[in-house]
Amino acid sequence: MRLTRQTNYAIRILMYCASNTGQLSRIREIAAANSASELFLFKILQPLVEAGMIETMRGRNGGIRLAKPAHLITLREVVEVTEESFALAECFESGAACPLMDNCELNGALHQALEAFLSVLGTYTIADLTQDKPFLRRRLGLPPLVEAHAAVA
Amino acid sequence: MRLTRQTNYAIRILMYCASNTGQLSRIREIAAANSASELFLFKILQPLVEAGMIETMRGRNGGIRLAKPAHLITLREVVEVTEESFALAECFESGAACPLMDNCELNGALHQALEAFLSVLGTYTIADLTQDKPFLRRRLGLPPLVEAHAAVA
Repeated sequence: MRLTRQTNYAIRILMYCASNTGQLSRIREIAAANSASELFLFKILQPLVEAGMIETMRGRNGGIRLAKPAHLITLREVVEVTEESFALAECFESGAACPLMDNCELNGALHQALEAFLSVLGTYTIADLTQDKPFLRRRLGLPPLVEAHAAVA
Repeated sequence: MRLTRQTNYAIRILMYCASNTGQLSRIREIAAANSASELFLFKILQPLVEAGMIETMRGRNGGIRLAKPAHLITLREVVEVTEESFALAECFESGAACPLMDNCELNGALHQALEAFLSVLGTYTIADLTQDKPFLRRRLGLPPLVEAHAAVA
């Protein structure tokens, strides 16, 4: 059982933007900080934009930023956007071939377990992952906050 | 996010044995009832035997049966035996390349969510999936219980 790479990197994009307070972030820099390809991150960006989590600013000084505060973006929302499927077993899919379909409680048990999983993720936000993390900006290749504010001033 | 095929079919093997009350079951019949290959089911059998859920009886009239009552085998135990990994994201693995390792709460959030998932599965047993299911035996290709008991008598 594993989350997709899309989910993994979507969370990193959101964490990067949340850490890069008040600044526009560039996919090139996020890709470099995470050893990921820009093309891959661009693909993940699209559903995050559509879901209202990220907004893009075009132009020479363009970039991306969170479309709403980090404490309003839960991990549940992110995985629900980026996971291609929560079909834990064959019986989640219409037209499944399992002969026990309609006579099996497994589907119900798995749905209940999945809801418990998602409920916990609903209690965590991108802010929980990024706030009060003095080393996080450095790990992401961002300048210390003092310099960042000086650059804006 | 998806459980492996091994888990899916391990549960079906256990359900078959639980439904085939007081009888030995044959992999050939379980394979036929589930449109699965015997070789694949044999591979899944081994960890279930090692985990003390299934016991095998050799010989011409041999077969397999539950090694303990169905109400003592939880779905949590099954998935813990059959899932190859619960490494939901890269950061669950030692030596992961994510630059945020050690500075990220994601790992903790996912562990908590996974524990909630497994806790729910710990409340369901193979008996919950099979008892009071009059149509289940027919779906599995087993004779109705009356005939089965007559055959034993």
